[in-house]
Amino acid sequence: MQTRQVDVAIIGAGTAGMGAYRAALAHTRSVVVVESGPYGTTCARVGCMPSKLLIAAAEAAHAAAHAGPFGIRVPSVTIDGAAVMQRVRSERDRFVGFVTDTVDQWPAEHRLRGRAHFVDEHTLQVDGADGALQLEARRIVIAAGSHPQVPPAWRDAVGERLIVSDDVFGWTTLPASVAVLGAGVIALELAQALHRLGVRVRMYARGNRVGPLTDPVLQVRSRQTFDQVMPLTLNASDLQLRREGDQVIVQSGADEQRFDWVLAAAGRRPNVDALQLHNTRLPLDAQGVPLFNRRSAQVGDSHVFIAGDASDELALLHEAADEGRIAGDNAGRFPDVRVRPRRAPLAVVFSDPQIMIAGQSHAQLVAEGVDFETGEVSFTDQGRSRVMLKNQGALHVYAERSSGRFLGAEMLGPAAEHIGHLLAWSVQRGDTVQQMLDSPFYHPVIEEGLRTALRNLQRALRMGPPPIERCLDCGPGA
Amino acid sequence: MQTRQVDVAIIGAGTAGMGAYRAALAHTRSVVVVESGPYGTTCARVGCMPSKLLIAAAEAAHAAAHAGPFGIRVPSVTIDGAAVMQRVRSERDRFVGFVTDTVDQWPAEHRLRGRAHFVDEHTLQVDGADGALQLEARRIVIAAGSHPQVPPAWRDAVGERLIVSDDVFGWTTLPASVAVLGAGVIALELAQALHRLGVRVRMYARGNRVGPLTDPVLQVRSRQTFDQVMPLTLNASDLQLRREGDQVIVQSGADEQRFDWVLAAAGRRPNVDALQLHNTRLPLDAQGVPLFNRRSAQVGDSHVFIAGDASDELALLHEAADEGRIAGDNAGRFPDVRVRPRRAPLAVVFSDPQIMIAGQSHAQLVAEGVDFETGEVSFTDQGRSRVMLKNQGALHVYAERSSGRFLGAEMLGPAAEHIGHLLAWSVQRGDTVQQMLDSPFYHPVIEEGLRTALRNLQRALRMGPPPIERCLDCGPGA
Repeated sequence: MQTRQVDVAIIGAGTAGMGAYRAALAHTRSVVVVESGPYGTTCARVGCMPSKLLIAAAEAAHAAAHAGPFGIRVPSVTIDGAAVMQRVRSERDRFVGFVTDTVDQWPAEHRLRGRAHFVDEHTLQVDGADGALQLEARRIVIAAGSHPQVPPAWRDAVGERLIVSDDVFGWTTLPASVAVLGAGVIALELAQALHRLGVRVRMYARGNRVGPLTDPVLQVRSRQTFDQVMPLTLNASDLQLRREGDQVIVQSGADEQRFDWVLAAAGRRPNVDALQLHNTRLPLDAQGVPLFNRRSAQVGDSHVFIAGDASDELALLHEAADEGRIAGDNAGRFPDVRVRPRRAPLAVVFSDPQIMIAGQSHAQLVAEGVDFETGEVSFTDQGRSRVMLKNQGALHVYAERSSGRFLGAEMLGPAAEHIGHLLAWSVQRGDTVQQMLDSPFYHPVIEEGLRTALRNLQRALRMGPPPIERCLDCGPGA
Repeated sequence: MQTRQVDVAIIGAGTAGMGAYRAALAHTRSVVVVESGPYGTTCARVGCMPSKLLIAAAEAAHAAAHAGPFGIRVPSVTIDGAAVMQRVRSERDRFVGFVTDTVDQWPAEHRLRGRAHFVDEHTLQVDGADGALQLEARRIVIAAGSHPQVPPAWRDAVGERLIVSDDVFGWTTLPASVAVLGAGVIALELAQALHRLGVRVRMYARGNRVGPLTDPVLQVRSRQTFDQVMPLTLNASDLQLRREGDQVIVQSGADEQRFDWVLAAAGRRPNVDALQLHNTRLPLDAQGVPLFNRRSAQVGDSHVFIAGDASDELALLHEAADEGRIAGDNAGRFPDVRVRPRRAPLAVVFSDPQIMIAGQSHAQLVAEGVDFETGEVSFTDQGRSRVMLKNQGALHVYAERSSGRFLGAEMLGPAAEHIGHLLAWSVQRGDTVQQMLDSPFYHPVIEEGLRTALRNLQRALRMGPPPIERCLDCGPGA
């Protein structure tokens, strides 16, 4: 078998791998990136971008169909499924093109096509189209990404009628009906988008949680909200799938429903199994995922680093990009490994209403035994939200009782992606609630709802009376 | 004439006056608020709220009519003018109700109806329905608000066919055509909203400036953008108005056009003339507006304070509320006057694309001779903006060369109201550009466009090479 030596081998040419490549190059030209699948990141190919394109079409359809209350008459709204998917795929291909253009500019000797697995800590075997290659690497970055998880029983029961999120973006038109199995971020975004695009959708949740919010009050509100905006079956732990011709019968309790497709949205699994990590002495967790330091990306005290979805930590693009840079830089400079600061946490779901968690979640605060207070606001009567008929949801903000320092927030409501940035930046800086209240709040804006929550939080920190303050010009909620 | 003594007299029961009342009460119960017009603030009655309601309807109509590119077929969109104005007025009345409810709860002896003018520094004459009253006040807060400015020549030329922004919100249906004279914030918001609601509109700008942006590059972009989205006549300094029956002929150069109404949107003038300030020795500017300290609201070193639109400084609700609190507190505690911190500046125009100025404007930086650098981004190719077909406009961010401290920004583009808060909060805290770049940017979001501008700014501060960095997964602009 042919053998090749390199300073740094990077497994995976996705967001994390590409970031690792750029960072490693600053230390050595002896770098190779091994990719077994198509170039183009998960985000651009089957993740963030195509899902936002589908959601943009869904919001256009929803807005047109709900203009009535504003005095705008729209007698008919028709979804041209072929046209919807045409835009989703062509724009998606454009975004993917930016990625592949970048990879194409890499020197040929830095690119290697094939499936890699560990022979030992320093040796990778890469099985490519023209045979196997032995890669001896002084340092290795695992950026192998993730894949949608599919319970084998489901696959056995319905065969190719079972699809995953990746498959949706290959559609050339919209199907008549889809059962969405799962109630996580991907399930929520796709189920609501397809529902708004006229597809008969039902979302099946194993338990009674809908979406990622951990604050008990907001989790209940999330469940109630999405139960109103789309067909939803909760506590479907007894789910039975049955194939009938080209259709699938989904049975939960006594209820049976028929769909063209079953979309398995049970989360994603890191691509570590094929790496044969058992051939190494790297420390692994129960799921076989390497144990690593999130500030250095280093696996144990080894010369191996891990980044992106493969680490099974935060499957978010902006985190994968950071992790890639950290892993690539440390692989390049090894053994002089450095720890890097990480950003304040921010997670967003592009549903309607949107969902966001900024800083520490309610669950994390409770788990860490932090002594914190909560400030709340409902958007039901918030001035600007009501003006735009986006007055749904609520926001909870959390602060440390002893210091008044802002710690985090959870939200279901309008413009959560923007409020999330405002709050995550405040967490990043260690703002106190008072510093935030001293900052400008324009009028009339959704941020005034945040101000109400912060005022209530400040009052709670002072153990003061129940909230009465409100924006005089924009209703009790604002 | 009946005479009455009070500690604090407040002229005006609007946003500033109500804030001043609450603050003064903390020091004395001997407070009276004099109001000559209807209760309910300018913001709620004829400002922020009804304009945002009209804009919400306009955006609903625009969205329905432009769903095609997403693959959504909407054969017809009809504007029900009566229904549009019905919602605008009923929701407006609801917001006004919150204000009047608050005033109704004030003790009767704290409320005085009538028109006030100064007899001397300590004496106000209030002419009410049942005669005149002499009010001897130890301290006085001027919170008399403002009114739309109308060149008398225009009024003479077209009589009652000339309307101001206040009149629009009294409409029970939409007119066929309106000439909007002016290109400032109010003109821009109303002209575009009416245009999108099917009213034949033309906006006439005296010069070639459209909107408030002071950055020369962005001002040009603003003019070009709005010239494309609605009928616009620039450099109409020679404007001639002529009445013909129930219509108005608007002549600019050789061009003549016929409209049902002429909307004078030439800005607002503080309500100071009727106060007969010449009976006092208060220091006044050339426009007859009292000279004051914006951190104490104090007029000269006197016992008179001024707040809100009457001060002719920042006719913005959130500033008026702050100024009212500061003026009322200082009027209450006089002579122990205190200076209060003011918030970082933030101004937003709710046009499409939106406009915002956060922190110091380009013009202020130049006028103050600040040594600053500029970072730029265009939203034309910004990933998420393009996904939503909101990819219009640009953002300029400014930082001090010596310190790298972020100073301000001007923007024409999507979600400017939210980006504006993020940036104004950074100015408030004195963030450096690097601190901002270290903060989280989710994906795919419009904030990634801000990140590109900040990276370019950081590069300019370092005198580095031209920008090449971009978000791999969301296009060159992101």
